[in-house]
Amino acid sequence: MSSVFPFSAIVGQEQMKLALILTAIDPSLGGVLVFGDRGTGKSTAVRALAALLPPITAVADCPVNAADIADCPDWADIKSEKLVKKPTPVVDLPLGVTEDRVTGALDIERALTRGEKAFQPGLLARANRGYLYIDEVNLLEDHIVDLLLDVAQSGVNAVEREGLSIRHAARFVLIGSGNPEEGELRPQLLDRFGLSVEVASPTDIDERVEVIRRRDAFETDTKAFLTRWRRKDGKIRKDILTARAQLQNTATSDDTLRDCATLCLALGTDGLRGELTLMRSARAFAAYKGASQTGRDHLRKVAPMALGHRLRRDPLDEAGSGTRVGRVVKEVLG
Amino acid sequence: MSSVFPFSAIVGQEQMKLALILTAIDPSLGGVLVFGDRGTGKSTAVRALAALLPPITAVADCPVNAADIADCPDWADIKSEKLVKKPTPVVDLPLGVTEDRVTGALDIERALTRGEKAFQPGLLARANRGYLYIDEVNLLEDHIVDLLLDVAQSGVNAVEREGLSIRHAARFVLIGSGNPEEGELRPQLLDRFGLSVEVASPTDIDERVEVIRRRDAFETDTKAFLTRWRRKDGKIRKDILTARAQLQNTATSDDTLRDCATLCLALGTDGLRGELTLMRSARAFAAYKGASQTGRDHLRKVAPMALGHRLRRDPLDEAGSGTRVGRVVKEVLG
Amino acid sequence: MSSVFPFSAIVGQEQMKLALILTAIDPSLGGVLVFGDRGTGKSTAVRALAALLPPITAVADCPVNAADIADCPDWADIKSEKLVKKPTPVVDLPLGVTEDRVTGALDIERALTRGEKAFQPGLLARANRGYLYIDEVNLLEDHIVDLLLDVAQSGVNAVEREGLSIRHAARFVLIGSGNPEEGELRPQLLDRFGLSVEVASPTDIDERVEVIRRRDAFETDTKAFLTRWRRKDGKIRKDILTARAQLQNTATSDDTLRDCATLCLALGTDGLRGELTLMRSARAFAAYKGASQTGRDHLRKVAPMALGHRLRRDPLDEAGSGTRVGRVVKEVLG
Amino acid sequence: MSSVFPFSAIVGQEQMKLALILTAIDPSLGGVLVFGDRGTGKSTAVRALAALLPPITAVADCPVNAADIADCPDWADIKSEKLVKKPTPVVDLPLGVTEDRVTGALDIERALTRGEKAFQPGLLARANRGYLYIDEVNLLEDHIVDLLLDVAQSGVNAVEREGLSIRHAARFVLIGSGNPEEGELRPQLLDRFGLSVEVASPTDIDERVEVIRRRDAFETDTKAFLTRWRRKDGKIRKDILTARAQLQNTATSDDTLRDCATLCLALGTDGLRGELTLMRSARAFAAYKGASQTGRDHLRKVAPMALGHRLRRDPLDEAGSGTRVGRVVKEVLG
Amino acid sequence: MSSVFPFSAIVGQEQMKLALILTAIDPSLGGVLVFGDRGTGKSTAVRALAALLPPITAVADCPVNAADIADCPDWADIKSEKLVKKPTPVVDLPLGVTEDRVTGALDIERALTRGEKAFQPGLLARANRGYLYIDEVNLLEDHIVDLLLDVAQSGVNAVEREGLSIRHAARFVLIGSGNPEEGELRPQLLDRFGLSVEVASPTDIDERVEVIRRRDAFETDTKAFLTRWRRKDGKIRKDILTARAQLQNTATSDDTLRDCATLCLALGTDGLRGELTLMRSARAFAAYKGASQTGRDHLRKVAPMALGHRLRRDPLDEAGSGTRVGRVVKEVLG
Amino acid sequence: MSSVFPFSAIVGQEQMKLALILTAIDPSLGGVLVFGDRGTGKSTAVRALAALLPPITAVADCPVNAADIADCPDWADIKSEKLVKKPTPVVDLPLGVTEDRVTGALDIERALTRGEKAFQPGLLARANRGYLYIDEVNLLEDHIVDLLLDVAQSGVNAVEREGLSIRHAARFVLIGSGNPEEGELRPQLLDRFGLSVEVASPTDIDERVEVIRRRDAFETDTKAFLTRWRRKDGKIRKDILTARAQLQNTATSDDTLRDCATLCLALGTDGLRGELTLMRSARAFAAYKGASQTGRDHLRKVAPMALGHRLRRDPLDEAGSGTRVGRVVKEVLG
Repeated sequence: MSSVFPFSAIVGQEQMKLALILTAIDPSLGGVLVFGDRGTGKSTAVRALAALLPPITAVADCPVNAADIADCPDWADIKSEKLVKKPTPVVDLPLGVTEDRVTGALDIERALTRGEKAFQPGLLARANRGYLYIDEVNLLEDHIVDLLLDVAQSGVNAVEREGLSIRHAARFVLIGSGNPEEGELRPQLLDRFGLSVEVASPTDIDERVEVIRRRDAFETDTKAFLTRWRRKDGKIRKDILTARAQLQNTATSDDTLRDCATLCLALGTDGLRGELTLMRSARAFAAYKGASQTGRDHLRKVAPMALGHRLRRDPLDEAGSGTRVGRVVKEVLG
Repeated sequence: MSSVFPFSAIVGQEQMKLALILTAIDPSLGGVLVFGDRGTGKSTAVRALAALLPPITAVADCPVNAADIADCPDWADIKSEKLVKKPTPVVDLPLGVTEDRVTGALDIERALTRGEKAFQPGLLARANRGYLYIDEVNLLEDHIVDLLLDVAQSGVNAVEREGLSIRHAARFVLIGSGNPEEGELRPQLLDRFGLSVEVASPTDIDERVEVIRRRDAFETDTKAFLTRWRRKDGKIRKDILTARAQLQNTATSDDTLRDCATLCLALGTDGLRGELTLMRSARAFAAYKGASQTGRDHLRKVAPMALGHRLRRDPLDEAGSGTRVGRVVKEVLG
Repeated sequence: MSSVFPFSAIVGQEQMKLALILTAIDPSLGGVLVFGDRGTGKSTAVRALAALLPPITAVADCPVNAADIADCPDWADIKSEKLVKKPTPVVDLPLGVTEDRVTGALDIERALTRGEKAFQPGLLARANRGYLYIDEVNLLEDHIVDLLLDVAQSGVNAVEREGLSIRHAARFVLIGSGNPEEGELRPQLLDRFGLSVEVASPTDIDERVEVIRRRDAFETDTKAFLTRWRRKDGKIRKDILTARAQLQNTATSDDTLRDCATLCLALGTDGLRGELTLMRSARAFAAYKGASQTGRDHLRKVAPMALGHRLRRDPLDEAGSGTRVGRVVKEVLG
Repeated sequence: MSSVFPFSAIVGQEQMKLALILTAIDPSLGGVLVFGDRGTGKSTAVRALAALLPPITAVADCPVNAADIADCPDWADIKSEKLVKKPTPVVDLPLGVTEDRVTGALDIERALTRGEKAFQPGLLARANRGYLYIDEVNLLEDHIVDLLLDVAQSGVNAVEREGLSIRHAARFVLIGSGNPEEGELRPQLLDRFGLSVEVASPTDIDERVEVIRRRDAFETDTKAFLTRWRRKDGKIRKDILTARAQLQNTATSDDTLRDCATLCLALGTDGLRGELTLMRSARAFAAYKGASQTGRDHLRKVAPMALGHRLRRDPLDEAGSGTRVGRVVKEVLG
Repeated sequence: MSSVFPFSAIVGQEQMKLALILTAIDPSLGGVLVFGDRGTGKSTAVRALAALLPPITAVADCPVNAADIADCPDWADIKSEKLVKKPTPVVDLPLGVTEDRVTGALDIERALTRGEKAFQPGLLARANRGYLYIDEVNLLEDHIVDLLLDVAQSGVNAVEREGLSIRHAARFVLIGSGNPEEGELRPQLLDRFGLSVEVASPTDIDERVEVIRRRDAFETDTKAFLTRWRRKDGKIRKDILTARAQLQNTATSDDTLRDCATLCLALGTDGLRGELTLMRSARAFAAYKGASQTGRDHLRKVAPMALGHRLRRDPLDEAGSGTRVGRVVKEVLG
Repeated sequence: MSSVFPFSAIVGQEQMKLALILTAIDPSLGGVLVFGDRGTGKSTAVRALAALLPPITAVADCPVNAADIADCPDWADIKSEKLVKKPTPVVDLPLGVTEDRVTGALDIERALTRGEKAFQPGLLARANRGYLYIDEVNLLEDHIVDLLLDVAQSGVNAVEREGLSIRHAARFVLIGSGNPEEGELRPQLLDRFGLSVEVASPTDIDERVEVIRRRDAFETDTKAFLTRWRRKDGKIRKDILTARAQLQNTATSDDTLRDCATLCLALGTDGLRGELTLMRSARAFAAYKGASQTGRDHLRKVAPMALGHRLRRDPLDEAGSGTRVGRVVKEVLG
């Protein structure tokens, strides 16, 4: 309905934009957590990236946006098999959402009024092939976050209860935003997000004026504004698509693997998810930059977003996690 | 049914009245939060402003007060397409209200007794094209406030559950009142209100006597009282309608943008909503004053209501937020 | 069924009796809060006053006791339009009451068994044209108290949910009793009650003996006891009816208005409800005393009951609210 | 089914037995609260007293044990109007009981399966004309205790909800037992019980042996045991019936009234229920003793049970309430 | 299904075994509370005793295992009246059980699908004539424990709600186990259990080896193991049956009664249940030992299990309850 | 669907792998608790072991994977009796799971729409003959953990409520994982798990690099990776199957029994489950190693996993449970 602000017109916020781009190149990176103040454009950026990506081709009536009638779930009531173009889906998870609305559930109304046992798909179905955005993820109940992370990882939503035994594809990138001052995620859950970034309002007057000017211009004459930024958005889209195609051909040297392990050990990150994500995001970044193999520059760039949320709290070190990662990156990678 | 106290007969409370007038000129400003003691006429003022505005023209049976049969929702059972005049709606949100009553829900009674799946519209439908008033917004559950702010911002109420997939227009100005001594809103929610004002009982005897005298006169001989204030109310109505028409033609100079950014940075308001609201409310105020472009005088007048609720708490500065805004406005704008 | 103790036979408790009489003269005063120990006859006094008032004339089957068939709600199933005499209703609100029982609700039983959508009226319907008594109002949930105050003020009970859209008259005087030692009302709610009084057990032996003697006499030979007090009750009834008729003709001078504002400002009562109630209760009292206009004597008498519950707590002034009002009344009115 | 231990065979516990006897003489005294350790025979005593009273004559199928078909509720399905003898009912209130089970409620099963709207009577119906026993009354929810006290006082159970409008007689004596170490009743509720007594295990060896011996004899050869105590139980029954008949003829002098008021004032009991209960229980005791009017001896005996639970806690006086009452009785009555 | 470990093969734990045997001789003793560490074979012992007792003869389809078709409840749907042998029932009460599952309830499924009002019996029905075992009784809700104790004492389960009025026999021995470190029973409930014992893991190596050896042998070759212990189990069974037959003929002298009272008084046990249980368990033990009357030796043996859970906590005496009982037994009985 | 990482390709984590292997040899050992940081491959290891075991042969439609049509539950709707090969089941227990989903429940949908009373099997049915995995078992409600341990021990799931009386085989190995920093299991539950192990991320760079390398290789070319490790997995499979066959023939000497008892006594483990598990796991380990009887070497290896979670907390000994077990093993076994 309403037009979306162009991705390339977002002023600053480079880390957040890069993290989003990396998940567009390799959706298996495992989602992004965005920490930061209110009003810094987190939700706008997610919508902007999705709008920049090429539309998906999907069966018109398919509840999970499948590209082929054969991939539509058998429980769906599909009248037209016509293929249509749809924008990349962005689904918002409302505060206080129930598990039933997330996973889908028995369609009580049809059961009661027509005596039929039908599945009422949920938000996970709608998010397939797109983005699932959770504002203030730290206010969501743990078991819902857990469930979302499970599905995001497996790409499958399996509902087994109330006499239903339903499975459907649910491949999406999970974007969570949160204000760390308002409650924290359990480390168990934090660790399951692939990347994390921190955003803040710009402190430069010119940058701030530019933000308002663009926003006002966008709202005053939307059409002209979109036209003006179309080419820059197109460039980013092209780079993402090229990187996606080259990803499998981008090599990861043994040196990179050693660097990953040394960094994680030096930072004391629990478990091994940190290393895997670090390696993969370096690869995606290398592909985005057109490099044929990963190097220390790539690691330096992505290490804060791949590791920052995996540090144990250190009561003797009051530096923020970004500073601590940066310091260790410097020691290890030079 | 009962008559409404005239807007122009309200004694004092200039800030609250101005904030209400600005939202009538530019409803996209994002609602008003009114902080203050009980018995200071907050609810009266909202009703008075709505009664002062010209009536809306709406399809008689339309549950969302649409101006045209084409805009009535398809789920509505509209028997007469006749256009009628209705007063600008003012909907009260009762304490302890459920999400179902706010958004509307499946009409359980019809489902059970007639086997029909029908939508029972909620308070958001009734508030379309008018005002939604929440007394003691700080006592409302966070997820309801969040939902109200979402709908107020998007202008659309989307209900997707229990087998329902309903959308209807829900454009309204949200007015929340609260006593800060009785619990606070999360900053995340505070920031999403456009303007805020503080009200207090007058401390001048003559002003207080005037309040009681007018109130008593209103109740003793309502008709005569309404007649006496009709002209003053008419003047305000005319100014609002003129300002609405001129809003798009009121220019915002680059100096104003710089002033907005400098003020917000100096005050340390989180995010960028503050700047946008400050700029827009200055523009609405300029239009109300008949100015062709915004100036520092306009900013000075609206800065406290656009920024006062967006300050971080500063433990070293015990001054109220109004004082802090005033001091910085003076430093920045002279 | 059971006989009611005569109002005039109540020993002492002059403030409580006067407050009840004033609400009988001007029901718009906004209810009475009675603070005090258990066993001091609060409930007895309300019933006694209602029994002393002349019976109301109402349509026999009307669920809201309307005086005319035209005023009976259209959802009511009225078989006989006969007018009957009914005692002034006194409805008790039980502890732990639900909102449904207060406002009325969908008649689930008829919906389930007969497939009909009918309204089951609640306690508010039965209280119309009478008294609603809440024992231990401080133990009731805030949103119920709020709802009761809303309805008491507007005189209309509007139920909009579960597919119902019902309105019916609900004009009643709200009497709440509470023991301040067992929990407090929020100031927001306190302020919405018109008058407040404190009651205590008498400390005079003769007065206490008189209480038991009358109570025992009432229970031993009810008929004889009622006969003995009939004349005194009749005198009070006549005075109330006369005052009701004269209320509109009782003038309120500008001096009285100034006195009201000065008193409230000196006492620091929040908001302006205090002044309005003070003025109106003085007028009702003047009418009861047969005076043609309000004077300082009237203000002195009613100020404690109109203002006592509207004081802010003052940690530096440990005097009770009654003492504080008295002291300021003396300073201001001499 | 099982036989009941004879009232007269209860060893010691004279205060508890007297309190129970007084409520049998004047059921309007308002119930008895029994404080004390577990295993001291509270429940046994209530059952024993009920078994000692003459059986009641009741309509066989009447759910409220009415003595006459005309007094049976119209909602009851009475097939036989035959009058039968029934033992005085003793109804136990189970821990965790719901309001529905107490008052009765809509018979959901009949509504669902037969489409009929029927009332399912509750424990209050079964207790009519008998005793309602609450073990550990301090563990019951306040609103249930409140409801029980309301019904006990009015003698009527009125159920108005779910489309039901039912009234039936519910005259019973409420006996509550509680261990003050395990939680307290609110003073508001305490005050509404007529009498209170404390019980404790005997500290005399012979008395304890006698208790076990009688209990063992009762269980070893129930029939012989009952025969042995029949005469003593008959004597008590006769005295109770005689006292009931003489109650109205037992005079209460003005001196007694003054004594009552003086005692209560000296003890600082809140409200005036204390005086009324003191006077009435003295009268019932006088009637039991065959006296023609109440005297100080009667007051001395019943004052502790009529007033002990009505004292305010006095932090400067650590004596138990029994001791405090005794001390004041001595000062006042000599 | 699975075989049960032989009672006589349990190593040590003499107190627990004796307590179980006494309840098999006199089921009216009132159940056993077993305190102690996990893994000490509490559940095994209960099952073992039940398996050792002769099978009961019961009507095949009877839900309460009645011995005669005349004793089967009238609500039961009994197709075959054939008498069959069944093992003594042992019913486990799961953690988190609801009252409905314990007492039985309306069969909702039959009501909904067949429109019939049928009773669905609960765990109490299945436990009739057997044992009801509650692991971790201190974690069960108080009102369920209370209900179980009521039924265990009266032998009757009475369900009166939802339009049901059902009674059925429910005679069983209640065995509760609990770890006192994980929460306590209210004294009120403790006192209603007849006996209590403490169990602990053996501290003797040989005894522990013997436990593992027997357990392993039992699991390795169950059949051989059962054969080996059959004779010893048979001896215990015979002694129990003989004692049951002699119980009524076992005399309790006045000296024993005095001893009981003196012991309880010295220990300060609340109430008189302690004395009764002490006397009865001494009698059951005397019968088990073939004595014709109770003596001090019998009292010495059973006093700890009859009184240990009835002591008040004594802050000045840190000794365990067992030690305190032993010390007083020595002083009193020599 | 997705391929499983090979068991033998897991780097390090020897204790966890051994514990899993032992439960594959002797499923009666009672499950494994895995304590440790996130991301250490707990879930991967369980899936890997299950995938390494030979597939089970099961009736195609059998809800409990029975090997023979005669063992399928009678309530199951089995259309084809065909025997098929299925992988060893691994069932995940989601956070926040309800008892109904675990045990199965009445199929409400069939009851409502078809009037049939059918059983909807739960997760326990699906886990039969396989593994049930609980991530973060310390966050699960106690009564669910309790239920799972009961069923795991008895091998039978018995559902008795809502008119259902269902039993079905539910033999599975319970694997629970938990982070002890996030809440603890009650000792009562801890003790019912057979084995426990602690896992941690490797601290050796080469080992960490190897982990990432294998993981990346697995994901980059799954097929080649599986082929490479097939032989090693086959060797483990063969050893497990051989050990299973030899288990009954592996002797446990009296010396081993004494050693078990001495160890447990020295460690002060509560109850006797520790000894039994120690003996059995030593036997399974001996069988895995091809030994004909258990020896001290076997005990030394398995003692930490059999006893570590059964120690009482010792405030004077801050060493971890592993250290404490090791120290005592050294003292006792040399």
